[in-house]
Amino acid sequence: MDHETSSPQASNGASAQVEARVRASFKNQSLMDHLGAELIRIAPGEVRIRLPHRPELTQQHGYVHAGATSTIADSAGGLAALTHFDAGQEVLTVEYKINLLAPAAGQYIEAVGTVLRSGHTLSVCRLEAFAVDHDRRTLIAAGQQTLIRVPAQK
Amino acid sequence: MDHETSSPQASNGASAQVEARVRASFKNQSLMDHLGAELIRIAPGEVRIRLPHRPELTQQHGYVHAGATSTIADSAGGLAALTHFDAGQEVLTVEYKINLLAPAAGQYIEAVGTVLRSGHTLSVCRLEAFAVDHDRRTLIAAGQQTLIRVPAQK
Amino acid sequence: MDHETSSPQASNGASAQVEARVRASFKNQSLMDHLGAELIRIAPGEVRIRLPHRPELTQQHGYVHAGATSTIADSAGGLAALTHFDAGQEVLTVEYKINLLAPAAGQYIEAVGTVLRSGHTLSVCRLEAFAVDHDRRTLIAAGQQTLIRVPAQK
Amino acid sequence: MDHETSSPQASNGASAQVEARVRASFKNQSLMDHLGAELIRIAPGEVRIRLPHRPELTQQHGYVHAGATSTIADSAGGLAALTHFDAGQEVLTVEYKINLLAPAAGQYIEAVGTVLRSGHTLSVCRLEAFAVDHDRRTLIAAGQQTLIRVPAQK
Repeated sequence: MDHETSSPQASNGASAQVEARVRASFKNQSLMDHLGAELIRIAPGEVRIRLPHRPELTQQHGYVHAGATSTIADSAGGLAALTHFDAGQEVLTVEYKINLLAPAAGQYIEAVGTVLRSGHTLSVCRLEAFAVDHDRRTLIAAGQQTLIRVPAQK
Repeated sequence: MDHETSSPQASNGASAQVEARVRASFKNQSLMDHLGAELIRIAPGEVRIRLPHRPELTQQHGYVHAGATSTIADSAGGLAALTHFDAGQEVLTVEYKINLLAPAAGQYIEAVGTVLRSGHTLSVCRLEAFAVDHDRRTLIAAGQQTLIRVPAQK
Repeated sequence: MDHETSSPQASNGASAQVEARVRASFKNQSLMDHLGAELIRIAPGEVRIRLPHRPELTQQHGYVHAGATSTIADSAGGLAALTHFDAGQEVLTVEYKINLLAPAAGQYIEAVGTVLRSGHTLSVCRLEAFAVDHDRRTLIAAGQQTLIRVPAQK
Repeated sequence: MDHETSSPQASNGASAQVEARVRASFKNQSLMDHLGAELIRIAPGEVRIRLPHRPELTQQHGYVHAGATSTIADSAGGLAALTHFDAGQEVLTVEYKINLLAPAAGQYIEAVGTVLRSGHTLSVCRLEAFAVDHDRRTLIAAGQQTLIRVPAQK
């Protein structure tokens, strides 16, 4: 059984069709699996991705590498934008900017993508990442992303 | 024998001490190994990292994921800044911004970090990534990064 | 009498000393006066600047120029960071990124700078700008800014 | 006689039609005139704008305000993108990011916008600003900008 499907948090209000498209897009990103990322929330205009700490994801101090944090933040934003799209439409990242605010310590990193503007061509998302260490949740990265809506490739 | 040491491009003008510190910092970033990234050039103010295409690094269209491209670009910039630092100093990424310009197709991605400003506290690097497909080299990402110099952690 | 002092919104919880330093910093930025910008709120970690629409601030379509919007957003963020500093400390913008989301129409633009992280050396602010047209308030720009704390110059 | 027309640098290789459209767009941006900015070079994919130092453009230390520098950099990039467009097309800034590298001292600031990618919908420009003090030219800001091509408004 799919890990995410069994999670009580896995969907919050997105229609079944939207949720299916977001899950399919996530699954088609092999890098998510290679990093060990999990899709934990799909709501209209908001998607969350969780990345458990693993030694192979670290930088020189043993924290999760900024690149891994940025990667799941970028994907969370892209999928958040996708929740507002119709079938047959896909999303591509145009650009993003991210500030690394604190070391990515803890059991896992959680990235949150939130749509600020969903336009005909361009969408803009807010990106946040939190390190979760038992009960403590620390904002470790904050950013902003521009995305473009494109017809789905066959 | 170390892959990078054998490359004719592996070092271009950086002193042996600087080169050793840059190599050590790269090696301590486990994520570089997990992605399959290789350090291919260390020069004063410029570092290049290569990422061969592998199926596990891809996004939904089979191209290298923007997150993987950004990760090696971020590391190339950090190591480029490090070439100007003294022993006992390390570099942390403060923030970066990156535009994805074209699909990351081809045999490998090459990221280039180039120092624009090396200050007492802050450094700024230009980030570029190219997709290399046989003889063709395409600029696929361009960005800019701010870094901070910190004392080495023990 | 000072324009801002008379506003009921002009201060919200910042100490008198902090407020005085923020006002002084704003007044010393001649460009604020040249654009016609007004300081309308000083709270710990949040500053708001208002820019009434004037024909000399426009771009080719008659809306307020993105440069003017960015300028007051940058200043709002800088002053928001300053609310957390001690006397004898000043703030400089390291970098910022801003998305222009909608035309800057209406009677005035209001920029809001909000501190996300206030560190020993670096601060990070969220930047927002709204166009206000009678009762309608539209988010027209969103961004993020990195700032550095420096000793005050004599 | 138009100030720019008399400059030997005012055009470098752009067709007369392109040059006329770039000049018209610049002239329609009232803020350029309010700041005192001058269009000094129009080449395919590159535009330069100069801003003479004036007391009303300064920040708290007497240097040109980062907002003024950013404004002319943003406009230089937009006009550089416009040099690749057809008649009946206009350019809007989607977003930009800029690092302030050094104080904006000297007789004038010169902003250079250079097209990195000119796409059907989106363009990306590199932004640079230099402070010029007699014979000395210092890079004071560097950034990157995303723009969108839109049909001209009537």
